[in-house]
Amino acid sequence: MTTIVQKFGGTSVGDVTKIKNVARRIKRDMDAGKKVVTVVSAMGKSTDSLVNLAKDITDSPDPREMDMLLTTGEQVTISLVVMALKELGVDAVSMTGWQAGIKTEAVHQDARITEIDAEKVQKHLNKNRAVLVAGFQGVGPSGEITTLGRGGSDTSAVALAAALGAETCSIYTDVTGVFTADPRYVTKARQLDSVSYDEMLELANLGAGVLHPRAVEFAKNYHVPLIVRSSTEDVEGTMVEEEATVEQNLIVRGLAFESEITKITIERLPNQFETMPTLFSMLAEAGISVDIIIQQMTSDNGINVSFTLDTQDLGKALDLLHNKKAELCYSSINHESTLAKVSIVGSGMVSNPGVASDMFKVLAEHEVAIKMVTTSEIKVSVVVPEVDMITAVEGLHAHFGLDAKEKAKIEAIKA
Amino acid sequence: MTTIVQKFGGTSVGDVTKIKNVARRIKRDMDAGKKVVTVVSAMGKSTDSLVNLAKDITDSPDPREMDMLLTTGEQVTISLVVMALKELGVDAVSMTGWQAGIKTEAVHQDARITEIDAEKVQKHLNKNRAVLVAGFQGVGPSGEITTLGRGGSDTSAVALAAALGAETCSIYTDVTGVFTADPRYVTKARQLDSVSYDEMLELANLGAGVLHPRAVEFAKNYHVPLIVRSSTEDVEGTMVEEEATVEQNLIVRGLAFESEITKITIERLPNQFETMPTLFSMLAEAGISVDIIIQQMTSDNGINVSFTLDTQDLGKALDLLHNKKAELCYSSINHESTLAKVSIVGSGMVSNPGVASDMFKVLAEHEVAIKMVTTSEIKVSVVVPEVDMITAVEGLHAHFGLDAKEKAKIEAIKA
Repeated sequence: MTTIVQKFGGTSVGDVTKIKNVARRIKRDMDAGKKVVTVVSAMGKSTDSLVNLAKDITDSPDPREMDMLLTTGEQVTISLVVMALKELGVDAVSMTGWQAGIKTEAVHQDARITEIDAEKVQKHLNKNRAVLVAGFQGVGPSGEITTLGRGGSDTSAVALAAALGAETCSIYTDVTGVFTADPRYVTKARQLDSVSYDEMLELANLGAGVLHPRAVEFAKNYHVPLIVRSSTEDVEGTMVEEEATVEQNLIVRGLAFESEITKITIERLPNQFETMPTLFSMLAEAGISVDIIIQQMTSDNGINVSFTLDTQDLGKALDLLHNKKAELCYSSINHESTLAKVSIVGSGMVSNPGVASDMFKVLAEHEVAIKMVTTSEIKVSVVVPEVDMITAVEGLHAHFGLDAKEKAKIEAIKA
Repeated sequence: MTTIVQKFGGTSVGDVTKIKNVARRIKRDMDAGKKVVTVVSAMGKSTDSLVNLAKDITDSPDPREMDMLLTTGEQVTISLVVMALKELGVDAVSMTGWQAGIKTEAVHQDARITEIDAEKVQKHLNKNRAVLVAGFQGVGPSGEITTLGRGGSDTSAVALAAALGAETCSIYTDVTGVFTADPRYVTKARQLDSVSYDEMLELANLGAGVLHPRAVEFAKNYHVPLIVRSSTEDVEGTMVEEEATVEQNLIVRGLAFESEITKITIERLPNQFETMPTLFSMLAEAGISVDIIIQQMTSDNGINVSFTLDTQDLGKALDLLHNKKAELCYSSINHESTLAKVSIVGSGMVSNPGVASDMFKVLAEHEVAIKMVTTSEIKVSVVVPEVDMITAVEGLHAHFGLDAKEKAKIEAIKA
């Protein structure tokens, strides 16, 4: 008998009706002869309510106590799903993170899983019980309750699947799968049958951010086949696995894009070994995430550095850089906001060196100015004016053969 | 440095403001040089909300899963109180039942504590941390989350006090202490400075049921001095201890009373050894609690049995007895409702044999008819017409010297 692991997020267990639906789905898989382990998140907005309680008490809640507080949310869900299963006549048992043997580092709010004692869950599976595991949580070396940080429940599910040698790990979510581009913006986006781990990592922003990169990395490292599928519609999802099936010889598998990007350029920094580490550790310590970085020499042996960041961090970054002008010894700063980043992603690029130039040609045809470029083995990203983002995406989506062939096909997938 | 244990119930931690008050009180005790362990219940009506969620899913929730569900309530409170303490600059740590080493039987919803691994709490006390423990919960032999049933948080506090060798265990509640009679009904009731464990057990109904009998029994068995005190008013409470200080040579320490009592009489049962065990195990199996029982021989060698029960169980009891008439072989049944039970309680009675006759004399003076009588070493109970209950209580309260001497005195206590 094969074991499957599945995960339902907060919206999929948001009320009693949805919890009963999850129970029915588990029963169906068990009736089909599977051993089923289900990881669930806290119900809908319940985590927000708990966070607000903490905020009413203090502006800087203790991380250990936040873990103690927030882990109650998943504990509520697991007990309710088991009650619903028992109501359907299915033997089932709920387990908190520590009961399920999910061991983590001694870190609060963003711990990594170090080990899973699979026997704790396995002994219930051996008795033909459905096992419900509280997602997002674990136990530290000294018995402290810890949480896994963002994407935590996905990671719980993938880690359990790896530890139990599960056939697949299904992530149930509010989209039907992974798309060639975010279908909220790109009308011709279509769902992929399969995608590789590496492509999925690069496409993390696609399809409404369905999978957290940490969970994908975990799945890749432990060779766990992931399935992204809908919790409401009963349709095939997208398989995330080692080598994605080659669909129609696609070189580019998908497009990612994000707006509200700002580019900052710092001119005439001293050409010294310490310049770059000093600058970027300063920004990191201030909690400012930097994405694309470009460094150029100036004619008089100084260096110019450009980098992109979320526009919402601009003020903080400018304040910091102005305050540190003496330390950094630059001559001037300028910035350009209302930019966007557009990326093409696909494992097939590695053996197709012409992809980047193809991309630039398409952008030129659509009169989209390129502000910055960065490339990796399976991705090319360009920074363009925000106003041209959708034009660029639609042009690239069509050029690389990603457009849905006919309207009817998408309807068939969704039906 | 002495250790104290204290417990705050659901109303005392019902909102963020009250939680901050509890934190300030803990800080004050720590500033006074105490090591403080605090047991808290779930916030206000949060347990009710969880119970309602379960009810929306099933009429008969699984006991194990109810424990999983309900224990989240106390876990929320402990984390919030610790956050409030840290906001006050006090080092503090929260512990669930299993983290605090509270081990119980393998029973759900009504487990008894079997052992406490005091080292788990002690190691934090040694680091001068305030320790917040989730009440009402423990962990079974195989790592299951269990709950202690009614009065659970009181029992958690008393058991921790015993395990830690605490100086006292304070139960903070919504009354200022234990009264000679329920002050909601008896205007001249006054607060006692001290009361013995046995008296407290008999007086369980007094002062709005401030302590659960199981917690009192636990305190008695482990010689833990209990203090019942107000969570809102800063006044002396009532000490519950081995030998209560003799106050004004009181023979009777307090009065308990309850209305809505029914007396059922079964006539002419067969005079056989099996009659009584058969009858009362029948009632017990049907979940009917019986209080006072009186058995009398009839002139023709049959037996008449009378017993009291809550009036709300009357219908169920009559149905049962009528259905079992053939088995029980009685001749007839009659019942009398709208009765009340009035009890006088005091350790001093043991050496004062005239107390019961004193009680009967007072009731006769007030023309209160006595329907049934039962006595124990430190208690005499009578069943009287419900309409005469308060007359009887006030007459006895005055006769046995319990009345507040002057109005001013009560005001002084409450001020």
